[in-house]
Amino acid sequence: MEGTVEVRFVAINRIHCRDDYRARFEELFQSRAHAIDRMPGFCGMQVLRPQKPDEPYLVMSFWESEDAFRQWVGSPEFLEGHKRGFDDLRAARERGEEPPMTSAFVTYEVIAR
Amino acid sequence: MEGTVEVRFVAINRIHCRDDYRARFEELFQSRAHAIDRMPGFCGMQVLRPQKPDEPYLVMSFWESEDAFRQWVGSPEFLEGHKRGFDDLRAARERGEEPPMTSAFVTYEVIAR
Repeated sequence: MEGTVEVRFVAINRIHCRDDYRARFEELFQSRAHAIDRMPGFCGMQVLRPQKPDEPYLVMSFWESEDAFRQWVGSPEFLEGHKRGFDDLRAARERGEEPPMTSAFVTYEVIAR
Repeated sequence: MEGTVEVRFVAINRIHCRDDYRARFEELFQSRAHAIDRMPGFCGMQVLRPQKPDEPYLVMSFWESEDAFRQWVGSPEFLEGHKRGFDDLRAARERGEEPPMTSAFVTYEVIAR
């Protein structure tokens, strides 16, 4: 995103939220840890709220390369950045509840801009 | 994308391509008309090729506001920018063939970055 480096790879995390978890979900990202910002090859991110409520939220991260993205997924920064969300998932599991959100990564190469 | 203005709205066009149309589809965007670049409030675009071939291509456009996006959809630049693609669709229809691609817009507000 931010100007000088070239985005070549995009990872999109599609997140379905329970209705009663939406406000918490949005707050988690609006007060995010910024751990990902320290990763080499990270170019920026955007969290997108769908205008149609049946669509998932999209968490998009922009990278110089696929390798930079893979490094992040295996890094301490990944765990640090997701700590509060992972805690919420574990707490729901311990209470025997459905998870408040489900997520799935889809990955892309940038072929034109 | 490009630095100074704030992206507040994102439109994603999900495009399913027939296998035999993929090369043409990619070429259309790699030699795109750049008509959209003239629109007020346009912040950039990315064309994303999925790593899993059953996922659609994503054409993402980034805007200062929803209004800027809506202005574009109703503009001469929208028709100019899509001319070759629309011609391909019409030619397929005239030959009685299935369309080589299908597309659907999904729209989002940026709630964090």
